[in-house]
Amino acid sequence: MGNLSVSAAQAIVLQHAASLGVERVKLEESLGRVLAEDVRANRDQPPYDVSAMDGFALRSADLVSPPTPLNVIEDIKAGDKPTQTLSAGQCARIMTGAPVPVGADAVIRVEDTRELPDDRVEILRSVAVGNDIRRRGEGMRDGQVVLAAGSEITPGVIGVLATVKAAHVVVYRRPRVAILSTGNELEGLDEPIDPSKIPNSNSYALMAQVQALGIEPVLLGIARDDAQELAGFLKHGLEFDVLLVSGGSSVGVHDYVRPTLEALGVSMHFWRVEMRPGHPVAFGTSDTSLVFGLPGNPVSSMVCFEQFVLPALRRMMGSARLFRRTLKAKLAHPVRIYPRRTEFVRVVLSRDTTGEYLATSTGTQSSGALISMAQADGLLVVPATSSGIAEGEWATVQLLDGTAYQNEPGFEESL
Amino acid sequence: MGNLSVSAAQAIVLQHAASLGVERVKLEESLGRVLAEDVRANRDQPPYDVSAMDGFALRSADLVSPPTPLNVIEDIKAGDKPTQTLSAGQCARIMTGAPVPVGADAVIRVEDTRELPDDRVEILRSVAVGNDIRRRGEGMRDGQVVLAAGSEITPGVIGVLATVKAAHVVVYRRPRVAILSTGNELEGLDEPIDPSKIPNSNSYALMAQVQALGIEPVLLGIARDDAQELAGFLKHGLEFDVLLVSGGSSVGVHDYVRPTLEALGVSMHFWRVEMRPGHPVAFGTSDTSLVFGLPGNPVSSMVCFEQFVLPALRRMMGSARLFRRTLKAKLAHPVRIYPRRTEFVRVVLSRDTTGEYLATSTGTQSSGALISMAQADGLLVVPATSSGIAEGEWATVQLLDGTAYQNEPGFEESL
Repeated sequence: MGNLSVSAAQAIVLQHAASLGVERVKLEESLGRVLAEDVRANRDQPPYDVSAMDGFALRSADLVSPPTPLNVIEDIKAGDKPTQTLSAGQCARIMTGAPVPVGADAVIRVEDTRELPDDRVEILRSVAVGNDIRRRGEGMRDGQVVLAAGSEITPGVIGVLATVKAAHVVVYRRPRVAILSTGNELEGLDEPIDPSKIPNSNSYALMAQVQALGIEPVLLGIARDDAQELAGFLKHGLEFDVLLVSGGSSVGVHDYVRPTLEALGVSMHFWRVEMRPGHPVAFGTSDTSLVFGLPGNPVSSMVCFEQFVLPALRRMMGSARLFRRTLKAKLAHPVRIYPRRTEFVRVVLSRDTTGEYLATSTGTQSSGALISMAQADGLLVVPATSSGIAEGEWATVQLLDGTAYQNEPGFEESL
Repeated sequence: MGNLSVSAAQAIVLQHAASLGVERVKLEESLGRVLAEDVRANRDQPPYDVSAMDGFALRSADLVSPPTPLNVIEDIKAGDKPTQTLSAGQCARIMTGAPVPVGADAVIRVEDTRELPDDRVEILRSVAVGNDIRRRGEGMRDGQVVLAAGSEITPGVIGVLATVKAAHVVVYRRPRVAILSTGNELEGLDEPIDPSKIPNSNSYALMAQVQALGIEPVLLGIARDDAQELAGFLKHGLEFDVLLVSGGSSVGVHDYVRPTLEALGVSMHFWRVEMRPGHPVAFGTSDTSLVFGLPGNPVSSMVCFEQFVLPALRRMMGSARLFRRTLKAKLAHPVRIYPRRTEFVRVVLSRDTTGEYLATSTGTQSSGALISMAQADGLLVVPATSSGIAEGEWATVQLLDGTAYQNEPGFEESL
């Protein structure tokens, strides 16, 4: 196998990732899932012409030279049925969402009127036919596909699902994910501190990366460098749809992981990608599982998850949006180049005076410096073919978890 | 009260929103929460000088004119303790993360070596002192503040927490949120279809907006237009930290919500904001609760949530990142202006040939058209003071839920 680019490795992974069947879940538990079936409207919405404002339903032809006094013949609230037909010179007080009475062809909002004594109101301006009326079926028409299979369930989608009374929805199943760390040097979260050991952070960082996708993974624990023990762990891990193994995937002689996986029937598709951090990243498949061998270095492990595991899990969940949101940012300083490897630089985002994004390195880019991953807003991509990025040049930044919100509104206005 | 801008209304809301005390949660359940205490390292990390590569630990001075043969005197795996001191002409086979033996001052990766018979290895190039060695304490130093109070718990933060063995963390409490819909016209999700009624979508869309922030709200149901019933519901709702009331907040005569809230001890701070959609949005406070009166129109309700409820909930959760991520996009077409109101246009994002974001309206901007909210990637902000935005001009877009991922990687390279 020759040198493998990040893009080529992603393509290999995605060739082997597919959705996993469907299940029915309650609407209240469907956020973030992906619809596995088209959803159709089962009624016209609104069910009749309704007022878009609190105001008065009237005949627009009555308002030739406003102000015009009209007689209020009825009060119509949302949920009411109008009982009278409007004639010339008449209007009805009407609430937002209430049905427009027969005879009316427009609504005027209450702010453009003035109450008069004796159930009369003065209309202060003229309006066009249809003004502030929402037409029957304007929101959705009975039978219309309102949501296509493959739609990700967002709050807006949940609103539409509630509108068609979908108390349950059919969605793609989530993959079951197992996480295994390997290495004699690792110390478990519940073990006492041994200064000569290294705390097992990878299991938990990977757990959180999986949780952020809406999947609750199973932590298998730590496999020591023992062929028998490792084989037992890996066999268990292969009962899941996806197995993440961190550590033990590099090219050293003490690497049991790859041969043990192969002995368990896993075909390895790659074990190295031209990227930094993250060079020793492996991918294989069994009949029923995807297996990712992630580097033992905490940052490398997280960066490899972002590039390979995340798109696979999103595809398995039925989504078409497989990759992290990217945006363009200006470099606050030049970035160094590592020839022939795609480099992912941990950066913090800020704004310059014109509102453009500025990317600043979090400092040390050592693959052991997990704090810098905790501080980062994104990963700035330096393509393998780049001859360097200078201060002030534009680059692509992948947004990491925690960046859906920002400190400032991003717009400001005073009246 | 004069005309209130979105920014001014946000400022009023945020004046009344504060964090709510702290609680202790398991690390596994902490994603998305906000740290309420500084977190310090309780060890040096790495605990000793370790190898950053699989390769050989050696004395750099031995490599004056490579290739240089060296004697391999020991194999050191991660978790091992070296037993020998290197002398001139000697090296140790070493794994990533394993301790560097006394006498060695550099590591060379295995790819730059060639195995020789009789426990010897040929080193193919020279290296600088310190090459591929991660120094003790380089990741974190014992006692150092590694995470500051106020940090949002992302996967990277969870990795750092696991590194300092924080099996539990102290975080800000989440607000308890209740959601109430009002109106005789509303039909509950579990009720049979009545064509003259309007399905209650707002409770569920708001539920999902709250869930997307990591909070499980309580749905109080639907209050009919009955003063007694409404008072009972609102009284119950005021037992929560935040009460969202949708519908019934406008200026019509059938509006019981505002006087009932005031009778229950709620001070109303505003009840109208110069925005579209969403003009009739109200905010009040009791001694213990924030109350938002959201418009009955589904889109208006969601847009008002985004501008006012979301920043309040995020501040109550202890976050400093209160607002939606924004980015700049080019208008794919001109947008119309509604004078003196900030307009939020539902848009879909795409990319032009140079990779810049393009914003295209989802079509009808009627506040009843919930489907367009389900389709939208963002809300394009047309400031109240704007005199119009032409095709090709730049505008600010607030990213909505579901946009953390995109269809394309955003970068591409081949080797």
